Amino acid sequence: MSTKRKVLIIGAGRSASSLIKYLSDKSTKENLQIILADIDLEAAQKLAGDLQNIKIEIFDIFEESKRSKLIKDSDLVISMLPARFHMEVAKDCLKYGKHMVTASYISPELKALDDEVKAKGLVWMNEIGLDPGIDHMSAMQVLDRIRDKGGKMLLFESFTGGLVAPESDTNKWNYKFTWNPRNVVVAGQGGVAKFIQEGKYKYIPYQKLFRRSEILKIGEYGNFEAYANRDSLKYREAYGLKNVLTLYRGTIRRIGFSRAWNIFVQLGMTDDSYEMENTEEMSYREFTNSFLPYRPHDTVELKLRNYLHIEQDDILWEKITELELCNPHKKIGLKNATPAQALQKILMDKWMLQPEDKDMIVMLHIFGYELNGEKKQIESHMVVIGDDQKYTAMAKTVGLPVAIVSLKILNKEITTPGVQIPIKKEVYEPILEELSKYGILFKEERTKYLGYNPDLLWG
Amino acid sequence: MSTKRKVLIIGAGRSASSLIKYLSDKSTKENLQIILADIDLEAAQKLAGDLQNIKIEIFDIFEESKRSKLIKDSDLVISMLPARFHMEVAKDCLKYGKHMVTASYISPELKALDDEVKAKGLVWMNEIGLDPGIDHMSAMQVLDRIRDKGGKMLLFESFTGGLVAPESDTNKWNYKFTWNPRNVVVAGQGGVAKFIQEGKYKYIPYQKLFRRSEILKIGEYGNFEAYANRDSLKYREAYGLKNVLTLYRGTIRRIGFSRAWNIFVQLGMTDDSYEMENTEEMSYREFTNSFLPYRPHDTVELKLRNYLHIEQDDILWEKITELELCNPHKKIGLKNATPAQALQKILMDKWMLQPEDKDMIVMLHIFGYELNGEKKQIESHMVVIGDDQKYTAMAKTVGLPVAIVSLKILNKEITTPGVQIPIKKEVYEPILEELSKYGILFKEERTKYLGYNPDLLWG
Repeated sequence: MSTKRKVLIIGAGRSASSLIKYLSDKSTKENLQIILADIDLEAAQKLAGDLQNIKIEIFDIFEESKRSKLIKDSDLVISMLPARFHMEVAKDCLKYGKHMVTASYISPELKALDDEVKAKGLVWMNEIGLDPGIDHMSAMQVLDRIRDKGGKMLLFESFTGGLVAPESDTNKWNYKFTWNPRNVVVAGQGGVAKFIQEGKYKYIPYQKLFRRSEILKIGEYGNFEAYANRDSLKYREAYGLKNVLTLYRGTIRRIGFSRAWNIFVQLGMTDDSYEMENTEEMSYREFTNSFLPYRPHDTVELKLRNYLHIEQDDILWEKITELELCNPHKKIGLKNATPAQALQKILMDKWMLQPEDKDMIVMLHIFGYELNGEKKQIESHMVVIGDDQKYTAMAKTVGLPVAIVSLKILNKEITTPGVQIPIKKEVYEPILEELSKYGILFKEERTKYLGYNPDLLWG
Repeated sequence: MSTKRKVLIIGAGRSASSLIKYLSDKSTKENLQIILADIDLEAAQKLAGDLQNIKIEIFDIFEESKRSKLIKDSDLVISMLPARFHMEVAKDCLKYGKHMVTASYISPELKALDDEVKAKGLVWMNEIGLDPGIDHMSAMQVLDRIRDKGGKMLLFESFTGGLVAPESDTNKWNYKFTWNPRNVVVAGQGGVAKFIQEGKYKYIPYQKLFRRSEILKIGEYGNFEAYANRDSLKYREAYGLKNVLTLYRGTIRRIGFSRAWNIFVQLGMTDDSYEMENTEEMSYREFTNSFLPYRPHDTVELKLRNYLHIEQDDILWEKITELELCNPHKKIGLKNATPAQALQKILMDKWMLQPEDKDMIVMLHIFGYELNGEKKQIESHMVVIGDDQKYTAMAKTVGLPVAIVSLKILNKEITTPGVQIPIKKEVYEPILEELSKYGILFKEERTKYLGYNPDLLWG
């Protein structure tokens, strides 16, 4: 009997559940020993549960000797740590000649190791979670197919959203936190949203981002909306879309979310750049009032509606009321909080997933192209619903591609070395194939090519 | 005959004209030799004109040997350089034991030299231009008077604006660039506007700043408006206003400016954080269109009005039209311009002071206080109109306080050593007295105490 192949998983976060389960389920057949390493024993035990062939190692990523030893002893290393810690892992993987897999964006420091990684014949696969990850693979599969037939790409739009499943959609915002709440609160900040429409560069500043959303219709799931990401042009070259006329990436929400979220933006409640005064003792009502003009004859409610032109019977107002933004008894209770931190506290009262709640991932790509003189359009969407609070749609869509690619690297089915993302056919084809067995798959339909062509829009 | 006292002025910018003239006019009587040092011979010559007792030295501030020699040879050094260069001057002033005067904010690095400056008995006076400068002195004069009588401060508001004089006010914005245009374009960015009203902290984000302006009535000059500065609380301790209920600082414009400026803010045109594509060849119309939705059946004009809800017969629309924001023939003509740089280019076509134009400085302080159980209010305003394009109101109000304090330091009328700002009576009294001879003076009126007391507001 051969020695077991050792897969070292560093970081026992929530997104590692499906990853670990996949590898554990295959561990006997594939002769795997999984080492789950984390600083938090309880988190690791919870993840491992009674899954087989998992060994837990408790360690701090900055504890160099233990880290080196664990990496040296493994055959492949998966880093599920926050992206800023990957370099510690990467240096050891290079030193000891190990394959590495992450679901994170490639940092310039990591990219800089590409030559050395190639020289050692190592596969370092990154951006192989959901977004980035499944978006790359599913988009490239269709793009390559269109181009292989001789089609010329005109338009590519791609949207992703982490939402609550329809059966758990119980609040007026049609939204709950299915991932890091902080990322939701500060979304859209830190840079302009830039994209291309019909060859024209367009720029949306933060203060208009949530008023420029697009309406999307996705299969049987009904209507959604999307606001523009900052990085619509990020993969223009990688995807081979240098001359495409329209390139847009967005974040999916249920219709009406952006219009209501814009209230927080306009008030200044999403600002994370300064600390407010007295936030520990501040009530929700005082918090709201600090962004409104001083006018002691009016209630906070009246000032808020007046300031943002909200009619009292507008659904917007029901959304505000539901959050108890004007409650004088509830306290922020955080020292030196930024507005964003205080807002997050208020939202977490209402938007946390409950034990019985399920989450939902929605992804949509739109491909417009010209083939044999004819303009065509393909819309491709994926909807994944979580099983429960452990095997969420997020954990499945992030963790399964990581698990699948790791096993395929171990089994030498994926061998091209380098610091890379999954945009090559040899990578995406087998992974998408395997994902489909787990219900992670795209439905395609051919639609009339709309693009942004005014003649067709009015035809 | 005694040796002449040497005053070294480093930096021959536009704001140095009145400063140099004041010292030159006094130079014979006061036995002064003025050394005007700048990298730009032409600028220095233009400033010196045929004024007496001025010697020009051409040098680069980073040319250490020449800088040291000039400073060593002088009796007092005035740095009119951009604030970031003051430290080079300061180090030499400390080394050779020279008094120093600047109109700039005290940087932490400069403040750190305080002990050494005091030990050497040197007077380093800063923030002694207009704003900061005249605002400190004129506010402290009234504050000290109120408190000397036993009054308790309740409210302090202070407003300053650099505007165009009524006789030169020829455009629909009632505004021209009388100072660095860039500062006007990026005004209000980089942090929340924070202030206190009736004991409550209030925060205005950038996207609302120009919709939260206050209306001001200033003597015979009519109505103005002001938007909040970021730093309303900056001098709370220095002014002894720790327990004041209302503290607000603002920037003055003519009424209607902020409402119109808000259009640029909402479009994203004031953003200085990223470079746009193809700005060299971009027309004004294309620039505007890049912030608007793609909708090829509508004109840029229609989209703009629709997007920002501007009625076609609104004065706002006349302001936009006046700037030719939708002109397809005029080009930005700048490589890799940020939106703010492109907007500045567009505004400079229309808002530059013409040779015959005069500028105007407006400052207003409002003091609310309680004395012998009675609430009182004083409003104090200053309006200064420029003589011409050389001796502008800005040059006078920035340069004359610098000149006056410099002479008083040389004459040992101001002797308290240290890195300081002009908030002590021994400093502000004689300087304000001298400034009044040049038409730079405040008019005070007692008004009914309004504060933000609702009973009085409705009384």
